[in-house]
Amino acid sequence: MNIELTLKIQDLNARYVQAIDDDKLEAWPDFFTENGRYRIATAENVERGLPLGMIYATSRAMLRDRVRSLRDANVYEAQRYRHIVSVPLVEAGEGGAIAAQTSFIVARIMHTGETALFATGRYRDRIVFEEGGARFAEKLVILDSRLIDTLLAIPL
Amino acid sequence: MNIELTLKIQDLNARYVQAIDDDKLEAWPDFFTENGRYRIATAENVERGLPLGMIYATSRAMLRDRVRSLRDANVYEAQRYRHIVSVPLVEAGEGGAIAAQTSFIVARIMHTGETALFATGRYRDRIVFEEGGARFAEKLVILDSRLIDTLLAIPL
Amino acid sequence: MNIELTLKIQDLNARYVQAIDDDKLEAWPDFFTENGRYRIATAENVERGLPLGMIYATSRAMLRDRVRSLRDANVYEAQRYRHIVSVPLVEAGEGGAIAAQTSFIVARIMHTGETALFATGRYRDRIVFEEGGARFAEKLVILDSRLIDTLLAIPL
Repeated sequence: MNIELTLKIQDLNARYVQAIDDDKLEAWPDFFTENGRYRIATAENVERGLPLGMIYATSRAMLRDRVRSLRDANVYEAQRYRHIVSVPLVEAGEGGAIAAQTSFIVARIMHTGETALFATGRYRDRIVFEEGGARFAEKLVILDSRLIDTLLAIPL
Repeated sequence: MNIELTLKIQDLNARYVQAIDDDKLEAWPDFFTENGRYRIATAENVERGLPLGMIYATSRAMLRDRVRSLRDANVYEAQRYRHIVSVPLVEAGEGGAIAAQTSFIVARIMHTGETALFATGRYRDRIVFEEGGARFAEKLVILDSRLIDTLLAIPL
Repeated sequence: MNIELTLKIQDLNARYVQAIDDDKLEAWPDFFTENGRYRIATAENVERGLPLGMIYATSRAMLRDRVRSLRDANVYEAQRYRHIVSVPLVEAGEGGAIAAQTSFIVARIMHTGETALFATGRYRDRIVFEEGGARFAEKLVILDSRLIDTLLAIPL
């Protein structure tokens, strides 16, 4: 067990969800490599091997576009999110990359103050260490539930 | 503070809940020692010193029987669970064993996609290090709530 | 990254929330320095720079008074709480103190057994290492929601 590695990934995860919860969406793409892949899919579809997700981006530029759309739509600001992530399960990586799995639970806090359990699932990540720190080369967000309506708008 | 020990227990906890959340129930008994004890009880009963729990097993074989019953009853597969566990509080152990306490919160995701807060509580564990890794010599699952109906069917 | 420091703060956080969840409120003030500050405020007010919080204490003695009031009012015992905290984001501190941010989610379990998501938010802490261990020189509890009714009674 590589203690330092585990803690570095914990730290990456903590900064990642803090950026989202603090509505610092413009910082969100920087957690990915230049050609980083980001996908949101349901557990059901992942288990069936269905390749497409609800959201699929293959570069930091696409994530930046996405943030711009969210800002234009002005949907995101009306509510807050609170992610709680578990400690990561770090696994043997391929080609220098590290594989990590991390459970998450997200609460949504509406403008009225109402709080509800919003999403649960697991991140399946491939992480690389670049100049400037650890980044996601791939982040697969696997949602436990297939109720997805508003989910489409939100970075997880 | 023993850093490596704390992280090893974090890792054990993460793998334990991942096996349950991934519906890999057949792997569940292997997290226990041959004569490992597993008990689910309410906080109320633990505080009153009532020894019996809702579930009580005293060996890996009993846990295997339990998994078989769950598979036969076919109850478990209809829903998903998502455990989020806190970092463990590791305490001085007796006779080489390590005592650890870990808070948990479990969401249940129904087949329809509905997600609800299902159970909260604390694990009170005794952990030993055997060939093949860390295992639970004892796991006491202390539930905060005494509403227990369907709980009886589910490994926590 | 200072591994030992991060784990010490994890441990402090785990003991802090365990004391509250175990209803050991008399131990709660001891997690603070003699002149430790404790404040609960909404995210909205923190962002607007409004200095006042729903609760504001500037010494361990004030926290002790608060616990006595809670015991007299006999409100607290009727329910249980379960905190789940994330790993802390540890930051460069000033004057020897350490700054840490930690997300939390709290479930409330009523006497009837009903469980609900109660509060979410983030701790923004200043931590010092004194004889006897790590303590909070300042704990700012930033709540995501502005629905605060019963919150006023409860240590978070």
